[in-house]
Amino acid sequence: MIATGRAKRPEDFSKNGKGIENQNLDNIEDCSFCDPDSSGQEKDVLIYKKSDGNWSLRVFPNKFPAFSQAGSLKKGGEGPYFSMDGFGYHEVIVTRDHNRHIPLLEKEEIAEVFDAYQDRYLDLMNRRGVDYISIFHNHGKEVGASIAHPHSQLMAIPVVSPYVELELRGAEMYHRANKECVYCLMAGYESEHKKRIIFENDEFIAFCPYASRAAFEIWVMPKKHKPYFERTNVEEKNKVAEVFKKAINSIYLALNDPPYNFYLHTSPCDGKDYPHYHWHLEILPHTATWAGFELQTGIEISTIQPEVAAEYLRKMI
Amino acid sequence: MIATGRAKRPEDFSKNGKGIENQNLDNIEDCSFCDPDSSGQEKDVLIYKKSDGNWSLRVFPNKFPAFSQAGSLKKGGEGPYFSMDGFGYHEVIVTRDHNRHIPLLEKEEIAEVFDAYQDRYLDLMNRRGVDYISIFHNHGKEVGASIAHPHSQLMAIPVVSPYVELELRGAEMYHRANKECVYCLMAGYESEHKKRIIFENDEFIAFCPYASRAAFEIWVMPKKHKPYFERTNVEEKNKVAEVFKKAINSIYLALNDPPYNFYLHTSPCDGKDYPHYHWHLEILPHTATWAGFELQTGIEISTIQPEVAAEYLRKMI
Repeated sequence: MIATGRAKRPEDFSKNGKGIENQNLDNIEDCSFCDPDSSGQEKDVLIYKKSDGNWSLRVFPNKFPAFSQAGSLKKGGEGPYFSMDGFGYHEVIVTRDHNRHIPLLEKEEIAEVFDAYQDRYLDLMNRRGVDYISIFHNHGKEVGASIAHPHSQLMAIPVVSPYVELELRGAEMYHRANKECVYCLMAGYESEHKKRIIFENDEFIAFCPYASRAAFEIWVMPKKHKPYFERTNVEEKNKVAEVFKKAINSIYLALNDPPYNFYLHTSPCDGKDYPHYHWHLEILPHTATWAGFELQTGIEISTIQPEVAAEYLRKMI
Repeated sequence: MIATGRAKRPEDFSKNGKGIENQNLDNIEDCSFCDPDSSGQEKDVLIYKKSDGNWSLRVFPNKFPAFSQAGSLKKGGEGPYFSMDGFGYHEVIVTRDHNRHIPLLEKEEIAEVFDAYQDRYLDLMNRRGVDYISIFHNHGKEVGASIAHPHSQLMAIPVVSPYVELELRGAEMYHRANKECVYCLMAGYESEHKKRIIFENDEFIAFCPYASRAAFEIWVMPKKHKPYFERTNVEEKNKVAEVFKKAINSIYLALNDPPYNFYLHTSPCDGKDYPHYHWHLEILPHTATWAGFELQTGIEISTIQPEVAAEYLRKMI
């Protein structure tokens, strides 16, 4: 994706240059998300209010969108290459308190964040050109959060996430061969053997995956077979919020507020059925730098066994 | 890959903890690569000397290897999961001068680095359990260089690089449909149209790829069809060194000595033939942080058009 709407001049990419990554955006006084009304943000597409009338969560289009509704959905290109316009929606989901990051929220507040994910998902999923909705959260400058105020992002795009496509294909193949969902199998195995588990309730489980991409990586997954995040009901949202809160708080405590990314993996909304996929959340704390080997191969090197990581994280619960 | 040979305790992963990434390893007085003999490095597996008898380049096993020859090549696992031992070779390729990074080397010295890659490749490629050899170079702490002294790394492993496998499959499919090599097509197209080119001679071309993964990414590629890096002859090595030197130096000048990774993509050495692959080097300067969207989807967002990046880089030649 080439997003020149966020363009810098070539000179700005220089180390110590004027690129956004070298700016200090941590300043609460200048925070453009603390008071979106007076900082020239786009108009809200969703707002939740507390009983006192003050907002608790807002969603508005990203001021510097990577994807926008300009351009067409036709394929273009040049010579042997293909391309298409960067069509899509790019929104930010902002919780109110500048200093209360996700691990510090109450589980009811986390459930509200998932409510917002779902509300926006349902609004966007049937729009023209939307085949996949990527929802993610960056915490810490080191992992791409250019604004310190807690916010998630949503990108609704005309292309299915390639990583999710790999998982879809794997789940499909596994189901064809074994007549069961590979994610159900994993959730069941982890719940039974307990070695890599962080926390579970009757609906959801958090565990360090067997072959973690990163040290202290956690997956949060429904224990029952659920292909579509957007069909989550109120009770399930409270249950996932409980498990997610324990999981992300264990990382926050164990690693001393590390930078992290988390993101949703759910079925595409491209009109096809995905009966064998199983939605989940992946939490990746920034515990290592992916370098030449990872970039060359796509194999990540982690330096701690997930069983050891999980045991340590469980102590924080 | 879980490499517990490089293990830290769980506590050491804490932000501002004692993990290797928080150490300052830039100190020339303590540099363990300036004088490998007295710093307890493993025994050299290759050494090049200058006419004055001093070494110019050495290769020795990594003191903290991610892969080693302990363990077996048998598949194991647990419950529904598969695993195998972290079998392999992990070597470091060190040039002499602490402060002369790759862009500052003469092209003859860069040719010597490629000589070392090839010598080690030829020595390792037929050993038991070696199906792929990943060669890469990290410059800058931000992109994983834990030791500042210029060094490349080589990992010879029993698994084909998954990213290379994707390219192999793509090249194979393209050849089946079009009866030509897709990399030859790219090299020819870029050489003819000049928009994304950085530099070329009669054997090699350096260009910013059409859909770059990162701003200012450069690929260096033989113009003729060559599946196997290890078969490069002396003349070709001098030619690739000339083009590579121009390419990496243009990044060094344009971006003010940015952190970067570069790595080799060549055919596997697993005993099969790969007639439709085409080896090349990929240089990735660190111009952006891959965050939630990239981790969720595998789609990288770059904020400059490769044509604009290439035009700027050409000015540095």
